[in-house]
Amino acid sequence: MSVPDSFPAEIADLIETGRDFHRRGWSLGTSSNYSIVVDRAPLTLLMTGSGFDKGRLTPDQFLLVDGDGAAIGETGLKPSAEALLHTTLAKAGAGAVLHTHSVPATVLGELFLAEGVLRIAGYEMLKGLPGFTTHEAEAVIEIYPNTQEIATLARTLEARLAETGNPILPGFLMAGHGLYTWGPSLADARRQIEVFEFLFEVVTQKRLLSGSF
Amino acid sequence: MSVPDSFPAEIADLIETGRDFHRRGWSLGTSSNYSIVVDRAPLTLLMTGSGFDKGRLTPDQFLLVDGDGAAIGETGLKPSAEALLHTTLAKAGAGAVLHTHSVPATVLGELFLAEGVLRIAGYEMLKGLPGFTTHEAEAVIEIYPNTQEIATLARTLEARLAETGNPILPGFLMAGHGLYTWGPSLADARRQIEVFEFLFEVVTQKRLLSGSF
Amino acid sequence: MSVPDSFPAEIADLIETGRDFHRRGWSLGTSSNYSIVVDRAPLTLLMTGSGFDKGRLTPDQFLLVDGDGAAIGETGLKPSAEALLHTTLAKAGAGAVLHTHSVPATVLGELFLAEGVLRIAGYEMLKGLPGFTTHEAEAVIEIYPNTQEIATLARTLEARLAETGNPILPGFLMAGHGLYTWGPSLADARRQIEVFEFLFEVVTQKRLLSGSF
Amino acid sequence: MSVPDSFPAEIADLIETGRDFHRRGWSLGTSSNYSIVVDRAPLTLLMTGSGFDKGRLTPDQFLLVDGDGAAIGETGLKPSAEALLHTTLAKAGAGAVLHTHSVPATVLGELFLAEGVLRIAGYEMLKGLPGFTTHEAEAVIEIYPNTQEIATLARTLEARLAETGNPILPGFLMAGHGLYTWGPSLADARRQIEVFEFLFEVVTQKRLLSGSF
Repeated sequence: MSVPDSFPAEIADLIETGRDFHRRGWSLGTSSNYSIVVDRAPLTLLMTGSGFDKGRLTPDQFLLVDGDGAAIGETGLKPSAEALLHTTLAKAGAGAVLHTHSVPATVLGELFLAEGVLRIAGYEMLKGLPGFTTHEAEAVIEIYPNTQEIATLARTLEARLAETGNPILPGFLMAGHGLYTWGPSLADARRQIEVFEFLFEVVTQKRLLSGSF
Repeated sequence: MSVPDSFPAEIADLIETGRDFHRRGWSLGTSSNYSIVVDRAPLTLLMTGSGFDKGRLTPDQFLLVDGDGAAIGETGLKPSAEALLHTTLAKAGAGAVLHTHSVPATVLGELFLAEGVLRIAGYEMLKGLPGFTTHEAEAVIEIYPNTQEIATLARTLEARLAETGNPILPGFLMAGHGLYTWGPSLADARRQIEVFEFLFEVVTQKRLLSGSF
Repeated sequence: MSVPDSFPAEIADLIETGRDFHRRGWSLGTSSNYSIVVDRAPLTLLMTGSGFDKGRLTPDQFLLVDGDGAAIGETGLKPSAEALLHTTLAKAGAGAVLHTHSVPATVLGELFLAEGVLRIAGYEMLKGLPGFTTHEAEAVIEIYPNTQEIATLARTLEARLAETGNPILPGFLMAGHGLYTWGPSLADARRQIEVFEFLFEVVTQKRLLSGSF
Repeated sequence: MSVPDSFPAEIADLIETGRDFHRRGWSLGTSSNYSIVVDRAPLTLLMTGSGFDKGRLTPDQFLLVDGDGAAIGETGLKPSAEALLHTTLAKAGAGAVLHTHSVPATVLGELFLAEGVLRIAGYEMLKGLPGFTTHEAEAVIEIYPNTQEIATLARTLEARLAETGNPILPGFLMAGHGLYTWGPSLADARRQIEVFEFLFEVVTQKRLLSGSF
């Protein structure tokens, strides 16, 4: 069966996600890519093809990629260069991965790159992230330099995910590029994007009003 | 009868409220909770269950809570920890309580926490709040520190509501957390949120342009 | 015939106007009022009643007012206190009057009140205002102090409109209150609001980026 | 055949474009004009007539213009004064030309006019522009002074487009006036506007947060 015939529900969910994210300014131009794990053995991701307008996705703009981020079958579509980041996150347990590209994520990633992390503490909205049960906590969002060498970044990320004792949030920034988020399901990842984007706007607004982050 | 069968009109209104507030950025992630008083003797509130996306509420995501904020009947839903604030306000006369979580409410509550209040004066829009008949007046919006100890906050609020001679506005901020508003009806509370959020944006914009609040 | 039966097209246009302006944040709470001249002899305006949500106007929320701003007939509705400003503008030739209440109009009116005018020059968008054929021109938007004494303001406005040699723009600000615009038709007045609100945002953005208006 | 009968698909696309751009604040008042090349020999453009609300275009508001920007046939419509810029770009190869008028484009064009260009470097979103394959690049967006002498500007633009060795981006700013973008197809030009507008917001936000562009 074709990809659209095999995964109609997942594709419908991702099309709706793209329409929503485009409307909110998180997936403009042909930026962003989204994936859902549809098989674990062997690892298989349903993913948006490269170069499409995310506000108007059609079922024939999705493809399957294997654990190395390579296209499965002949669809005529090209996987995004960033497919390797999706598969790296899927191997670490993610069921859905969303990469978005908002203005605040782009700018904050750039401004805090030298520090390597963006720290956000003390807000009730943190409780929308997994593992946070109180506002008296700090989210440490890691920031990686932007690169066209995705394989190298994927190895860095893989090593970071394998560390213990200092777990990574289910979200990181690429400087001047945007946000990656992941979770057990697409709904989880979407909720987390709302939380991260809200926090980015809070941090921005606070800085503008008070002069400090 | 089930909760959805018993209060179809109230539930439809709250579902529409959530969709509207989510679209405007006032109820993102799983933040916010809304209630309507459906009985006074014994006090009974129809309320959103904890942890749901307010932009896509469904009728089975509502429950009834009693005057102590405890769930009535077996629905499998958990009342929000903040149900106690809703019942405290209902006991003081509110017919509907809305808790929202916008960026400006979050930031202004944080920035003015040390002063304990946010004062907004001189704007025509103040006339959208009960008791204001002229712009030559001052709204004094109280700000409470955010806490996970809701029972303690509820007692503080109860004492404050019982004071006379210095009545509280039908709205207060929790620092880094958002706004509570209440009124005789859901429509009143919704109108007040629009008024408060407008005033928060005015205060923010004025500060950015002029350097002073 | 009832007001809704007599002017179905005009009422439909104003309902749609309110829905649009509410969505854009120009008519929140119960702010704003709109009118259309439906007769010149004697002068009769179709106008929104006082106190309604402009995002959800219904046909029974409109009334007719005479040249003194008083209600015609028994509808149970109260004309806005500001009806006198609408009739004053109608006597000076306006076919439609729109009063809106955006954040930028509120703030800029307050910040420039001491100067009495807001001057905006050099923008192509000025050509969207009547009489402007080049961007090399200056719009001088008059600003009046906000007041609850509408009759007094109406007389000031009437005198100003009667002056010659220094014509007033079809738009003025009330400090901390918002914008009045008028034109031959509702479509003209709506287009002008878009132009004014655009220019207010440009002036605001320029000030934030460059430090000067 | 009439213009609407001859190009129904192109007109439907441009009507939808106008509705979208109006909603996003890029084509307010009666600003903006859009064109599609419908014939190369002789050069013929389908173009929006002058003075219409782009959010509510109707099929009878389009006309054909020849290579000199003059109206073809009798439609009662006036071509925009800026039709000459569209034909100049079409002669240089464009299949569609979009002129929009956002707040950030208006303000940034004004602020950077003295430098003659707006330089934007280092962002992943640059890859949404033709010829950019890495974020390690710089977009040099040319800025022309605003003018009502469109014929003169058209000659300047024509000369600039004919230069070799220093190709112009498919987009330029007119100070205080807005953005021109063009591409092989309407879809290309629309995607580029999203990219340019995103970058304008990034540059604005970065300046506000960091003090430097």
